[in-house]
Amino acid sequence: MAQSNERGLQSSKEDLSDWYSEILIKSGFIDFSPVGGFIVLLPPAAFIWERIREYMNREMEKMGVKNSYFPLLIPESLLKKESEHFAGFTPEVAWVTEAGDQKLDERLAVRPTSETIMYTMYSKWIHGTSDLPLKLNQWNSVVRWETSSTRPFIRTKEFLWQEAHTAHATEDEALKQAQDALDLYERVLKDLLAIPVIKGRKTEKEKFKGAVFTYTLEAMMPDGKAIQMATSHMLGQNFSVPFEIAYVDDKGNKHYVWQTSWGLSWRVIGAMIMLHGDSKGLVIPPEVAPLQVVLVPIIYKGKPDPTPRARELAHELELAGIRAYVDERNDKTPGYKYNEWEMRGVPLRIEIGPRDVERGTMVLARRDTGEKSVANMADAVAAVKDALSSIQKSLYEKAKQKLSSMINEVSTLDELSEAVKSRKGFSVVNLCGDRECEDKIYDTTGATVRCVEESAEGKCIVCGRPARYRAYVSKAY
Amino acid sequence: MAQSNERGLQSSKEDLSDWYSEILIKSGFIDFSPVGGFIVLLPPAAFIWERIREYMNREMEKMGVKNSYFPLLIPESLLKKESEHFAGFTPEVAWVTEAGDQKLDERLAVRPTSETIMYTMYSKWIHGTSDLPLKLNQWNSVVRWETSSTRPFIRTKEFLWQEAHTAHATEDEALKQAQDALDLYERVLKDLLAIPVIKGRKTEKEKFKGAVFTYTLEAMMPDGKAIQMATSHMLGQNFSVPFEIAYVDDKGNKHYVWQTSWGLSWRVIGAMIMLHGDSKGLVIPPEVAPLQVVLVPIIYKGKPDPTPRARELAHELELAGIRAYVDERNDKTPGYKYNEWEMRGVPLRIEIGPRDVERGTMVLARRDTGEKSVANMADAVAAVKDALSSIQKSLYEKAKQKLSSMINEVSTLDELSEAVKSRKGFSVVNLCGDRECEDKIYDTTGATVRCVEESAEGKCIVCGRPARYRAYVSKAY
Repeated sequence: MAQSNERGLQSSKEDLSDWYSEILIKSGFIDFSPVGGFIVLLPPAAFIWERIREYMNREMEKMGVKNSYFPLLIPESLLKKESEHFAGFTPEVAWVTEAGDQKLDERLAVRPTSETIMYTMYSKWIHGTSDLPLKLNQWNSVVRWETSSTRPFIRTKEFLWQEAHTAHATEDEALKQAQDALDLYERVLKDLLAIPVIKGRKTEKEKFKGAVFTYTLEAMMPDGKAIQMATSHMLGQNFSVPFEIAYVDDKGNKHYVWQTSWGLSWRVIGAMIMLHGDSKGLVIPPEVAPLQVVLVPIIYKGKPDPTPRARELAHELELAGIRAYVDERNDKTPGYKYNEWEMRGVPLRIEIGPRDVERGTMVLARRDTGEKSVANMADAVAAVKDALSSIQKSLYEKAKQKLSSMINEVSTLDELSEAVKSRKGFSVVNLCGDRECEDKIYDTTGATVRCVEESAEGKCIVCGRPARYRAYVSKAY
Repeated sequence: MAQSNERGLQSSKEDLSDWYSEILIKSGFIDFSPVGGFIVLLPPAAFIWERIREYMNREMEKMGVKNSYFPLLIPESLLKKESEHFAGFTPEVAWVTEAGDQKLDERLAVRPTSETIMYTMYSKWIHGTSDLPLKLNQWNSVVRWETSSTRPFIRTKEFLWQEAHTAHATEDEALKQAQDALDLYERVLKDLLAIPVIKGRKTEKEKFKGAVFTYTLEAMMPDGKAIQMATSHMLGQNFSVPFEIAYVDDKGNKHYVWQTSWGLSWRVIGAMIMLHGDSKGLVIPPEVAPLQVVLVPIIYKGKPDPTPRARELAHELELAGIRAYVDERNDKTPGYKYNEWEMRGVPLRIEIGPRDVERGTMVLARRDTGEKSVANMADAVAAVKDALSSIQKSLYEKAKQKLSSMINEVSTLDELSEAVKSRKGFSVVNLCGDRECEDKIYDTTGATVRCVEESAEGKCIVCGRPARYRAYVSKAY
């Protein structure tokens, strides 16, 4: 895209927000659309989303979760069936009220999520135990008319995601499914995007509207703000009762099913960018990088041109399943090319000069560390595979250490305020679990409880009564 | 799904419309949604759509077409920029007018197609020849508020499709792209869905609103009605002028770009069902079949159970990349199982009885011909692969012969009326190309011109003046 022609970043990674806005456009990941709060997803980002989709499709297949597609438009009457759910979503629903030149009898919601339309069908399909479990997933886009300020990937009025919805005969089975989904998300984040997370539950205040409770994965960004990566909801029978999703057992007794829903959105791409990038630009984990290796031939006047050898090598790498590209532009210097591909986050660069061709060597330059090493062309495939897998691992390990260093125990409200103000990351506190104490934390510090683990140790940081939770507190995206 | 528990079809394939409605539900391909004209896509159909997506992604990658995603909602002012386009789509646009509790200043169209939103961005991105060609594809859903009666896959108010949009420096390059897209669609239809087609151009009357002209692929259904499978539009400069998509050449001269757009929707799944199915139910081409082989162990009291051997075989087939399943239900007879899997269109059945286990043999039963043969278990993978590839080929060949038999030359309007009335398929006629003559055909016969080829032979079937086209005329879905 045209806007990526200008090289170099104006913003430093220290100013994360500016850096993020600039790199998204310069790298050609997104552009802004004519309607505020909506973005255009461009090829490199679409490629990453497609890799996530493929990975999850394979894993969901193993879990018995199958793909499906449900209508975009949901009648208002359906959306209203679960009252807490409706109350939670209605402030941000976009409504279709006209079609062609007629006014519709009933408003249709552009889906903000698909519980209500899917469960209307589940009610029709589920009658006996042989219809269970029912596990369907959708890859689609949803619209939520955010009133707070938007930010590409992180908070947009429309976003791509997957939403899976399962129905089970027993509570235990549903609970296990909700946990399995969380584990799947943890693998997606680790194996593909190299993002380490904290796993836990949301509080009553922060849970999905309509759920019994919500599991969450929270990542920590370099500016000390947390970001929710994916959630898995135990819906219990909250929807099966109003939607009449029930089965009759062998003895003729009727039981409402137990349900889960879980989703992961393109937001994870935003977190990947903020987490790994540096002042030179993007750093994309090799597993999802559209280009894994860029080869730059270095041409000296009067010496044999290394380009043909670079092409052969690229071909060899491609045959081995590696995404490689030779930058043959002759109006750009090697230095210009290095900067540009570094900005775009290509994990590995191979430099080949005339001497390398003579000697059968090549220089490998890692994007993450900047480290250079020499390898034999004869071992190209093995050397590149090693380097890529080492980069993938090391991005995760580095991020994990960073995350650990940003988790701090805090035992008074004053300490918490100080930690939040100085953007130290997660403050771990003991909490009694009362809504009042949770509200007090927000009112005093501006931070929210990102997730909790059950723990009966210590005393509530706010009221001093015995604690029920260890809570991770932070400002958040 | 529950409704698929009832075995057997009430409708004969002769009553295509009834048969189609019945098999779609019985086979668990779709269900009807609470909003009229919208359907729910269920796992077997979603699987087929996913195979089409994978195939096309690979082929588009080779053409340099990359995936992207553009916003669902398009401001009315953008939609209006190309007047013929707007006039063509506006009667069927669903409008978002409210969000949360606010009324929007401008109506937003739920995209009926994405030309206008994409080209607004193309205008921003394209400045010089190095920005060209620009080739982006989207997999999304669009909404078109059909006023005529809807039918699953064939005509629904929302449908899944891909839409690709390319911009080129020259007319020739755009023309070649429009043709290449048509060839790609022909391969998708042949290689995956075993659907033979007629290739041609739409008339002025039938072309896409906003295009210079439209290429089309038309298939013929067993009831003698044609169905448009995919279209590729030469947009010329019809959009680049109002949207100001232009580049400046080396000499500083400004040129508007030449564009194409092309799309294929889930409609092809509907055509596949109508074309290959029979009175027992679906016949799914092996390339896209969710299950390619079902193994049915046949149990005799007092004889060794062949189930373990069937499981081993299924495992062996799966390792070879074949989608296989053992039907181990012990409350169903083999006959019941045969009927059910035939209804669901599984291409190949393997029957294994105690004697087969002793002898190391198995019975293969083809879904398309009903033919049975005996093969050695030791050659299972090769035998199954052969059978599947033979079924795929033979479905296409049979359909192609059928298509040929349904193309008839016709030289008078009376003959044409008669041919249309008796549902003979495509009537090939000579046409002068005038709109009046084309209208006359519709008024007289109720059939439309599905596609034309340039041909200066003969005289117009309506007015008798020298012909310009050979035209394929038929009633159509």
